Amino acid sequence: MAEKSTTAQLLIGYGEDSHRLGQGHELWLGGVHVESDRGAIAHSDGDVILHALSDALLSAFALGDIGSYFPDNDPKWKGLESRVILEVVLQKVRDNGYRPGQLVAVVMLDRPKLGPSRAAIQQNLALLCGLPEKRVGLTFKTSEGLAPDHVQCRAMVYLEPIPDRQGDKG
Amino acid sequence: MAEKSTTAQLLIGYGEDSHRLGQGHELWLGGVHVESDRGAIAHSDGDVILHALSDALLSAFALGDIGSYFPDNDPKWKGLESRVILEVVLQKVRDNGYRPGQLVAVVMLDRPKLGPSRAAIQQNLALLCGLPEKRVGLTFKTSEGLAPDHVQCRAMVYLEPIPDRQGDKG
Amino acid sequence: MAEKSTTAQLLIGYGEDSHRLGQGHELWLGGVHVESDRGAIAHSDGDVILHALSDALLSAFALGDIGSYFPDNDPKWKGLESRVILEVVLQKVRDNGYRPGQLVAVVMLDRPKLGPSRAAIQQNLALLCGLPEKRVGLTFKTSEGLAPDHVQCRAMVYLEPIPDRQGDKG
Ligand SMILES: [Mg+2]
Ligand SMILES: [Mg+2]
Ligand SMILES: [Mg+2]
Repeated sequence: MAEKSTTAQLLIGYGEDSHRLGQGHELWLGGVHVESDRGAIAHSDGDVILHALSDALLSAFALGDIGSYFPDNDPKWKGLESRVILEVVLQKVRDNGYRPGQLVAVVMLDRPKLGPSRAAIQQNLALLCGLPEKRVGLTFKTSEGLAPDHVQCRAMVYLEPIPDRQGDKG
Repeated sequence: MAEKSTTAQLLIGYGEDSHRLGQGHELWLGGVHVESDRGAIAHSDGDVILHALSDALLSAFALGDIGSYFPDNDPKWKGLESRVILEVVLQKVRDNGYRPGQLVAVVMLDRPKLGPSRAAIQQNLALLCGLPEKRVGLTFKTSEGLAPDHVQCRAMVYLEPIPDRQGDKG
Repeated sequence: MAEKSTTAQLLIGYGEDSHRLGQGHELWLGGVHVESDRGAIAHSDGDVILHALSDALLSAFALGDIGSYFPDNDPKWKGLESRVILEVVLQKVRDNGYRPGQLVAVVMLDRPKLGPSRAAIQQNLALLCGLPEKRVGLTFKTSEGLAPDHVQCRAMVYLEPIPDRQGDKG
């Protein structure tokens, strides 16, 4: 017991994603459809929060990135719902004996304003990840001229061992 | 006691900020005035460290972002000192039973060189956050051509429960 | 004993780096040479993973950044192998009684595809940092048009006290 240090049990993860915006595409963020005259040009639904979050979770276990599992040049994954990607990743997390403990994501998008969608995105992410809403921090920023034609996300997670389970003896 | 896991008490936060640079504007970083021929074009003083740090602290409790509390289109907040923003945010952190345990910030700016201002910025951030200076890590980078007309910051924090207090039972 | 809180022992770090790409330069990532028609234009070998990682480690102890130790305008450091930078930084980490517990890095590069180099980079980083490979998370992203002529890296670390040693009483 004593030799099992606390810090050894904690894991962190970090991921990012970006997509170019185009007319005639839908804008999905955290599994929520956001009304917008432009959306993410992507092979999948281009949900930068779910992509960055999935990569962040994989990074914590050095399991590669979502591009390794769902290559965007494979027609099999065309139009793939990002919720499915996250579910596959969360299963890998659980298989390693862990669960998300907290997630924070910064979304960079010039318009539309995302504030009105915050509650819906937060609720959905909490639901998908099995987290209380107070553990899902969302920050919305404009690009200040640096990326007016893109939507971007950077996400951090920390993960905690599932109680009463023995995984990741690493 | 035993059921109160250590990881459940730890919180992390992440935030970022950027502003376009313009002549005739002052450059403020971490509450410190830095001599520069250009400064941040902003509704407030455009202090990217204090803005990114404030958002990082809010993100840890899913309290929204500083744009929710101090909208930049509200004339009430014109010229707002970012120190005031941080103080409001730190009070929210304390109200949740937490305090900053460590902060690290990367500032991206092509010129002037920020090395000579490092000690002053570090001291001021430590003072504002109630942290020892050794818990305030600052990295300065140039944009390598990616953003020559902007000042940017990305900041990470971790937060620890205030000892002998009971907040955030989440 | 009881007063020595667990969270006080944990440290996090964050760093980033970017270099412009040019023909006739080599591409080094995590100490591994990657075949590419373009490489990082840099004073050193331009290894963005090792630079971002070194800065992340320094940030955890507020020890400045690698630019403070190896200024890129000093001819003494021209052609410097970034592995040497990391070794110097890791010694500082150990001097403070800590060691890396986990590292995650996102590399942004449009081409070549880095997937085939993942295992080699991961192995080398694990070796350099004294970490198991499963504690070295690597994510590879393209810039989606935002930085087609740059290679970038953002890296997070967490650090744990070296058992049976007493450093960093802070
Ligand atoms: Mg994507
Ligand atoms: Mg700002
Ligand atoms: Mg570099």
